[in-house]
Amino acid sequence: MKAYLSRRYRLSASHRLHAEAYTPEQNRAVFGKCNNPHGHGHNYVVEITLAGPVDNETGMVCDLGELDAFAQTNLLAPFDTMNLNTLQPFRDLVSTTENFTMEIYRIFAQFPGAKVSRVRVEETSNNSFEYSGPTNIRKAESI
Amino acid sequence: MKAYLSRRYRLSASHRLHAEAYTPEQNRAVFGKCNNPHGHGHNYVVEITLAGPVDNETGMVCDLGELDAFAQTNLLAPFDTMNLNTLQPFRDLVSTTENFTMEIYRIFAQFPGAKVSRVRVEETSNNSFEYSGPTNIRKAESI
Amino acid sequence: MKAYLSRRYRLSASHRLHAEAYTPEQNRAVFGKCNNPHGHGHNYVVEITLAGPVDNETGMVCDLGELDAFAQTNLLAPFDTMNLNTLQPFRDLVSTTENFTMEIYRIFAQFPGAKVSRVRVEETSNNSFEYSGPTNIRKAESI
Amino acid sequence: MKAYLSRRYRLSASHRLHAEAYTPEQNRAVFGKCNNPHGHGHNYVVEITLAGPVDNETGMVCDLGELDAFAQTNLLAPFDTMNLNTLQPFRDLVSTTENFTMEIYRIFAQFPGAKVSRVRVEETSNNSFEYSGPTNIRKAESI
Amino acid sequence: MKAYLSRRYRLSASHRLHAEAYTPEQNRAVFGKCNNPHGHGHNYVVEITLAGPVDNETGMVCDLGELDAFAQTNLLAPFDTMNLNTLQPFRDLVSTTENFTMEIYRIFAQFPGAKVSRVRVEETSNNSFEYSGPTNIRKAESI
Amino acid sequence: MKAYLSRRYRLSASHRLHAEAYTPEQNRAVFGKCNNPHGHGHNYVVEITLAGPVDNETGMVCDLGELDAFAQTNLLAPFDTMNLNTLQPFRDLVSTTENFTMEIYRIFAQFPGAKVSRVRVEETSNNSFEYSGPTNIRKAESI
Repeated sequence: MKAYLSRRYRLSASHRLHAEAYTPEQNRAVFGKCNNPHGHGHNYVVEITLAGPVDNETGMVCDLGELDAFAQTNLLAPFDTMNLNTLQPFRDLVSTTENFTMEIYRIFAQFPGAKVSRVRVEETSNNSFEYSGPTNIRKAESI
Repeated sequence: MKAYLSRRYRLSASHRLHAEAYTPEQNRAVFGKCNNPHGHGHNYVVEITLAGPVDNETGMVCDLGELDAFAQTNLLAPFDTMNLNTLQPFRDLVSTTENFTMEIYRIFAQFPGAKVSRVRVEETSNNSFEYSGPTNIRKAESI
Repeated sequence: MKAYLSRRYRLSASHRLHAEAYTPEQNRAVFGKCNNPHGHGHNYVVEITLAGPVDNETGMVCDLGELDAFAQTNLLAPFDTMNLNTLQPFRDLVSTTENFTMEIYRIFAQFPGAKVSRVRVEETSNNSFEYSGPTNIRKAESI
Repeated sequence: MKAYLSRRYRLSASHRLHAEAYTPEQNRAVFGKCNNPHGHGHNYVVEITLAGPVDNETGMVCDLGELDAFAQTNLLAPFDTMNLNTLQPFRDLVSTTENFTMEIYRIFAQFPGAKVSRVRVEETSNNSFEYSGPTNIRKAESI
Repeated sequence: MKAYLSRRYRLSASHRLHAEAYTPEQNRAVFGKCNNPHGHGHNYVVEITLAGPVDNETGMVCDLGELDAFAQTNLLAPFDTMNLNTLQPFRDLVSTTENFTMEIYRIFAQFPGAKVSRVRVEETSNNSFEYSGPTNIRKAESI
Repeated sequence: MKAYLSRRYRLSASHRLHAEAYTPEQNRAVFGKCNNPHGHGHNYVVEITLAGPVDNETGMVCDLGELDAFAQTNLLAPFDTMNLNTLQPFRDLVSTTENFTMEIYRIFAQFPGAKVSRVRVEETSNNSFEYSGPTNIRKAESI
C-alpha cells in the first residue's frame, strides 16, 4: 500500500559555474557563458517525492503542514533569493544543478515525517535533474 | 520491447477531508482548512500509465479509443463534477487524493486492453500523488 | 510610462451552479452536470493586473508585499478552500466564474496601492474569464 | 486586416534590487530579500508582440528568421546568463522587471520588420509585466 | 457589465508553407524548412474569446454547450487531424497560422451565442497569433 | 552517486497512421481519423534522460553542449519539420509515437557522453510515451 506524494517548492537564486581547480581558460572551456564572473540565475522548481504507506485513519502519506514547515526552514529560508556560490554547501563544490539536487536530497533525508524517495529540480523549462540517493538505497525506493 | 503510454484525463470534483473516527477537534487539527464543513474542490489531472509490448502491426501499446471509452464509463461519468465524499468508495475512507489515486488504480486494473503500471493524480499545480499497485507487483512494473 | 504588473493567486473552492429563480428542470437544462446538488470544485488561478506609472526611485508599479497582504486578507482568507455558494457575494447570484471574476474585480478596486486594470480567472485549463470594470472606465484602462 | 504575432524568448539572468539613492535601511525596507548583496536570479520568459497587416503573398506578419536574428543580437547576446546590474541600461536604474520590460520594448521598437505592440516579461510563474510604449502610442496599438 | 469568456480547443493538423505565385527558389528563400514538400505539423491550441454582458439569471456570458457544439461542427470536424493545404480556405492562401487564425475568426463571427472578440492560436510553445477582426470593429471590442 | 539529467527538445512533424499489411477498411477501423491520407501533425516534446555519476570536478552528468550538438545532428536535423512517413525508420513501421519513441531511444543509445536511461515523447498535452530500452537493461536503469 505504498504511495508517493510529490510537492513542489519554487525558489529563485543565482549561481556561477566555476571550478577552483581549473584555470580561467579551462573554466571558460567547460562552463561557457555560465562561467561569466557576475553569475546569472534561475527560477528553480524543486519537487520532493516522499514514499510511504497511506495512513488508514488520515488517508495521507504525511502531513503537508509538517513538510511545508520543514521546507520553509531548510530549503526556502537558506536558498531562496540567494547566490548559491556564497553558501556553505557550494564552498568546495561547483554550484551546478546536479550538485544542488543532491544537496536538497541530503536535506530532505532528514525529514522525519516520511522517507524521501526522489528529488527533482527543474532549472529551466528544458533542463531538469533527479537524484534518488545512493544507488543501493535508490533501487529499493525506485519509482 | 515494453513501452509505456500515458494518457491524461481531467475532472473537477469537490471533497472534504474528515475522518469519522475523529472528534471535531481532531479533524480540525489534522486536516486544517480542508475540514471546513462545506468542502472545497479541485481540477484533478489524472494520468494513467499503461505498460506493454508495442504491437508489430499497429505500432501501438493499446487502442486509445478503447481506453477513452473505459475512462468515460469508469472514471469521468462517476467522478467528474461530483462531490467525492458522497460516492461509494469514500463512504468509509477519507477522500484524500492519496485514497482517490489508489481507487483509480483499482479501477484501471480492470482495463482489459493493457496493464496499468502507474496512476498519477495532480491535485494542484504543487501537489501530486502516485500509486503503482501493491509493492510486490509494483516492483516488476516500476518505471 | 504606464506599465502593467500581473500577479497570480491560486485557490481551491467548490461551487454549484443553481439559480433560485428556476425550477429544478430549468436548472438541469441550463447548468447540466454543474447543477448536481453536492457541488464540484476547481483550482482557480486568479490573475490581478494592475496599471500605473513605474516609480522613478523604486522601479516598481506597486509594492508586491502590500498586494500580497491585501490578497491574503481579501481574497485567499475568505475564498480559499471554501464553498462559494455559502458565501455572502453568492447569496443572490449564481456562483459562475463570470460572477466570481467580477466580484474579485470589485474587491481589488479597493486596493490602495495601484489601479486594478483587469482580473482574469482560469477555472480549468480550457476555460478562463476576464473583467475590466464598467465599460466606460475599462476603455481608458484597456490593455 | 491587422494581426498580431507573439514570439517567446527565454533567458536566465541575475539581478539585485537596490536603489543608489536609498540608505541601506531604506533599500532593505523597500526591496526586502531581493536586496541581498549577492543577488539572485530568474528564468525570464520574454514575449514580443508585433502588429501589422498580413502580407498577401507570404501570409505572414513578419519574417520570423529576421525577428530571431534581431533578438539574438539585441536581446539574448547582451542579457542571457548575465547579471543585469552590471549592464549599461541598469547603471542608473533599479533592475526591476518593470524596468527590464520597458528596456526590451525600447530595443524592439528598433526592429525594422514590424511594429512592436507589446512586451510581456514573465519573471516567475506568478509575476509578469507588460509595457506597450508611451500611452498615446499604446492606445492606438492596444490589443 | 461586459465580461470576456475564453475557451480553448486543441487540434492537430499538418501544413506546408508554399506560395503558388513564387518560384521554387523563392519559396525556399521565404519559407525555409517549412516549405519542404511533404509538410510538417502542429498541435494548435485555439482560444476563442467571446465578449458580452453577464446574464442576470444564469450568470453566464454564453452557454458553453452551444459553443462546444458550434466548435465541434465548424472547427474540430473540418480541421482536426487534417492537412490544412488540402482544405478549401487554403486553396488560394498560404496556410500560415496568421491566415488560419483569421479564418477561425471568420468562422466564430457566425456563432449566434455571443460576439467573438478575439481569436488566438498557439502554433508552438513559442509562437502565437491573434486576430480581433477588422480594425474599426476591433477597437470597440479590444481587451 | 548516480544522478539523472533530462533535457527537452521540441520538433514539429507530420505523420499518417497506416499499416501496409492492412486493407483500407482495416486501416480505417484501427487508426480512425489518424489514417486520413493527407496526414496531420504534432509539436513533439522529446525528453532525453541520461544517467551517470556526477563528475567531481565539473559537477555535471554530461556536457550539455555535446548533448545539444548530438541532438541537432541526429534528432532535429533529420526529423524537425518533416513528414515522418517519408523517412527511413518508418519505411516498414507505422509512424506511431510509440515507434518514434523507440527510434529516438536507439539514436541516443549511440550518444557517447552518458548512458541514455529513458526517452519520453509528449505527442499532445494529453498523450505521452516512454521507452527505457530492452527490459533486462531497463530494469537496471529504471528511474
